[in-house]
Amino acid sequence: MPPNVSAHNTPAADSVVVGVDFGTLSGRAVVVRVSDGAELGTAEYAYPHGVITDRLPGTAGDLEPETALQHPRDYEEVLRNAVPEALRLAGVRPGRVAGIGTDFTSCTFLPVTADGTPLCLLPGLADRPHAWPKLWRHHAAQPEADEVTALAAERGEPWLARYGGRISSEWQFAKALQVLRDDPDVYARADRWIEAADWIVWRLCGAETRNTSTAGYKGLYQDGRWPSREYLAALDPRMADFARERLDHPLSPPGTRAGGLTAEAAAWTGLPEGTPVAVGAIDAHVTAAAAGTTGPGRMLAIMGTSTCLVMNSDVRAVVPGMCGLVRDGITPDAWGYEAGQSGVGDIFGWFADTHVPPDYHEEARGLGVSVHELLSRRAAGAPVGAHGLVALDWHSGNRSVLVDHSLSGLLAGTTLATRPEEVYRALVEATAFGARTIVEAFTGAGVPVHDLTVAGGMVRNPFVLQVYADVLGLPLRIAATEHGSALGAAVHGAVAAGLYPDLHTASAAMARVRPDPVEPDPAATAAYEELFTVYTELHDHFGRGGSDALHRLRALRNGARAAAPAARGGGPR
Amino acid sequence: MPPNVSAHNTPAADSVVVGVDFGTLSGRAVVVRVSDGAELGTAEYAYPHGVITDRLPGTAGDLEPETALQHPRDYEEVLRNAVPEALRLAGVRPGRVAGIGTDFTSCTFLPVTADGTPLCLLPGLADRPHAWPKLWRHHAAQPEADEVTALAAERGEPWLARYGGRISSEWQFAKALQVLRDDPDVYARADRWIEAADWIVWRLCGAETRNTSTAGYKGLYQDGRWPSREYLAALDPRMADFARERLDHPLSPPGTRAGGLTAEAAAWTGLPEGTPVAVGAIDAHVTAAAAGTTGPGRMLAIMGTSTCLVMNSDVRAVVPGMCGLVRDGITPDAWGYEAGQSGVGDIFGWFADTHVPPDYHEEARGLGVSVHELLSRRAAGAPVGAHGLVALDWHSGNRSVLVDHSLSGLLAGTTLATRPEEVYRALVEATAFGARTIVEAFTGAGVPVHDLTVAGGMVRNPFVLQVYADVLGLPLRIAATEHGSALGAAVHGAVAAGLYPDLHTASAAMARVRPDPVEPDPAATAAYEELFTVYTELHDHFGRGGSDALHRLRALRNGARAAAPAARGGGPR
Repeated sequence: MPPNVSAHNTPAADSVVVGVDFGTLSGRAVVVRVSDGAELGTAEYAYPHGVITDRLPGTAGDLEPETALQHPRDYEEVLRNAVPEALRLAGVRPGRVAGIGTDFTSCTFLPVTADGTPLCLLPGLADRPHAWPKLWRHHAAQPEADEVTALAAERGEPWLARYGGRISSEWQFAKALQVLRDDPDVYARADRWIEAADWIVWRLCGAETRNTSTAGYKGLYQDGRWPSREYLAALDPRMADFARERLDHPLSPPGTRAGGLTAEAAAWTGLPEGTPVAVGAIDAHVTAAAAGTTGPGRMLAIMGTSTCLVMNSDVRAVVPGMCGLVRDGITPDAWGYEAGQSGVGDIFGWFADTHVPPDYHEEARGLGVSVHELLSRRAAGAPVGAHGLVALDWHSGNRSVLVDHSLSGLLAGTTLATRPEEVYRALVEATAFGARTIVEAFTGAGVPVHDLTVAGGMVRNPFVLQVYADVLGLPLRIAATEHGSALGAAVHGAVAAGLYPDLHTASAAMARVRPDPVEPDPAATAAYEELFTVYTELHDHFGRGGSDALHRLRALRNGARAAAPAARGGGPR
Repeated sequence: MPPNVSAHNTPAADSVVVGVDFGTLSGRAVVVRVSDGAELGTAEYAYPHGVITDRLPGTAGDLEPETALQHPRDYEEVLRNAVPEALRLAGVRPGRVAGIGTDFTSCTFLPVTADGTPLCLLPGLADRPHAWPKLWRHHAAQPEADEVTALAAERGEPWLARYGGRISSEWQFAKALQVLRDDPDVYARADRWIEAADWIVWRLCGAETRNTSTAGYKGLYQDGRWPSREYLAALDPRMADFARERLDHPLSPPGTRAGGLTAEAAAWTGLPEGTPVAVGAIDAHVTAAAAGTTGPGRMLAIMGTSTCLVMNSDVRAVVPGMCGLVRDGITPDAWGYEAGQSGVGDIFGWFADTHVPPDYHEEARGLGVSVHELLSRRAAGAPVGAHGLVALDWHSGNRSVLVDHSLSGLLAGTTLATRPEEVYRALVEATAFGARTIVEAFTGAGVPVHDLTVAGGMVRNPFVLQVYADVLGLPLRIAATEHGSALGAAVHGAVAAGLYPDLHTASAAMARVRPDPVEPDPAATAAYEELFTVYTELHDHFGRGGSDALHRLRALRNGARAAAPAARGGGPR
């Protein structure tokens, strides 16, 4: 059976699939019942090398700022450790495992040889930073990303609009271009460049496969084509054949069977050789299968430190500030939209960690709750707008809809009576206003949004969920799993194994959603209208050119720090 | 000798004068050597009744919100206690005391009988709130103040421009109008209304006198006239003769001899009967004499929880947003300007108290310093602008130059790396930018500002002083007394006693200023230029009509609180 065709087998009553989620700091395996998505066992394995930011293993050399690398052996260790442990905890015989699916952070990207060996594992290359996998949050390629964007804009490349007009420093071309510029020898020795999402599947199946999702969202593959040879040659003549020679491969849509487990991978995982494996996938996108949002117009917000919004649609449109629009990006035969909020939970965390006084910490300890919980309890009682505050949620810049990473946060309306819980609430509200701004950008562009489902760590925060429901004026469906990505990967595995005819059907059976949505309070929703108009006024003034104040502050900051780096955080003058 | 003429007597080498400063919570007496201003002894006496905000002495009734009253007997107790104690500590025989001067908070205003008895001390009136002295910070007369302003604007009253176009709820007409409206019987029984500054002098000398300063700054007396009978009748027909019957009296400029101590007051204070007493004065304004800033163009900033700026000039001009412009207001024969910043030290205090995390408090404790000091140390080392922040210092509204009390604070430029000391510094800088905005309003209106002197509690904060010097690009003269008002009152006493020919000469001899000014760092001054332009952009956008966002937030807040008062600060919804 060719790898991109699945037959539909009726699942045995007790069939299970394994999903493996490769995250930023660890990998997690979950054993899932095919019939209903029940999670029978889960195990996490922390990467021994974590995120490599300062020095390479076995070296003393300092890495440049914004570097974020990983060790490919760590990924294999997840297969060796987390998978058998999850099976053991689930009490499941390996023979019952009908398929395996994976998902990965993205764009995590690495140079490999023709047989898939990471360059960093080759003799003599271990001390070369650019031979190592670059984690999604490796941000050192910003100048290269700016080049990629500027050239695309100059040449009028049609794909640029699919990415909100801006190519991220996290993506494939920026990362590869950085390597070409900084270590051309490593660049030259890479036969292939590959997403870690596809590399891990290569390790499982023993053959290279590639998926439509990472190719589209991170590799600028659109309408059946990579960026043109002319474009790439203009970027750098040495890169002219990069896409044709180092990326190109038949692309398989999500849920496709990539192959079967090799003997080696079977030995690592304890699963039978030949167990069907799904093609590689992106963590956020597989979560749609775990949350039952693969249908058109069903928006999924994966809310954690930041928020990733993914939605399928039958409509193709240019939505301002989206991160990516990819055919077959989330499921086959649909337009997969992605949008994002750069800062959400990390803004709340920053405030709770650095701006809450001792008496609050003591009270939280006395109550046996977190500072977040205390702030939430104190904030929840007040009527909408009673704090007199509004904030802009741009502490990490703004991805959607402004696509401007040099913006920063703002808080307006403070008085001497302003309490920490009021600021906390204003920050929560600001991120909800940001989410509403994105939803309105979709509907304003003619892309219907029918409902909204929340997954990610924020599902544990009822206060935040209620604010979002109130601000958006929508019931929020809430994912009922702590491991949405791993469960989604398992759903992909079930489809790849032919146990369901497609991702929609599999998701309908296996998705885990709380029975009761979080309902908006109509009075609060009405009250938030006026506050949202104030937010929008500030959003547009500072984000759309009315004022350049935030950019000037950023330029001042960067200039001051560059001029006197030693003085940062120093003592009295 | 008539009370408004002073002869010049050569001071005996060991002559002293007594200054008594009546503050918000206490009174302070200081014994000062006439020849050089040395403070020989000082004593403070806390008002037994403090500020009366909730219930009158001996009653159970709740007072209305924003009420702030005082007990007139408390003022007399200061004379009985603090003055003798200061003399004892100074080791000074009462016979060496050549004069006494006082200063008072203002506008603190009370209704009295023809002989000066406060109405609240009359039988049957002790339980009537409006019979009591209204402290400066009694803000319950805001509706009346708005009426006073609106009618003056409507009628084109020429005096309105002398007060920045806005009459404060703290001032005489607003307070009296509130009494007329709320308790017409008390209003009718008041033969006279008088500033506490003049009332205490009446108690000392046994005869009513009035001063040009409170009449001008708080009583709307301008160009030799009170507000017209027509204006007052339009305000309320019952008030038509208010100024003529209840306020009018010959006015004496600062430093004038009001009279000599009565036998009764001599007994209270332990000073000889007949000791010369200066006319009443305002605390902020007498500080000019203590800081050597009575000359034209010498601006004095009295910086504490808020900042009061006072300056004499030969030039009369309309400076936007000043609080008052009064001929003979600070010294005779000059135009006395007053401007103000509504929030300064209280903004720093609010932040340090409510937005600084436990580890900072622990570190401060370990170092044996205040949290303010720790924040200052941590903030001082960074180059200008390295925090990437700018704030608006409007947490208590903006007095000068915008005259808008419904504005609120703003902070722009925050990121997940923003530290508390950086926000603290941004707040300090914001108040310095606010001060610079005021200085530039003066110079822009053609009123020269030659130098700037700082008095008040903030003189103990070298970090704040350095930021101000850097932002203003000026050396800051620093008052070298902790009791600037009491010292200034003593200088007035010396002039009233004829020991110096005028306040300028007395101040030149007796003012206490540190030998070394705080010098600006030219590099920092240059760097602050750009940050100040960002501040000014936000200041003008939010303060001059570009955006109504802060007013909308205030209206939302007030509306939400009015609709659900019980929910304020309540538990989870």
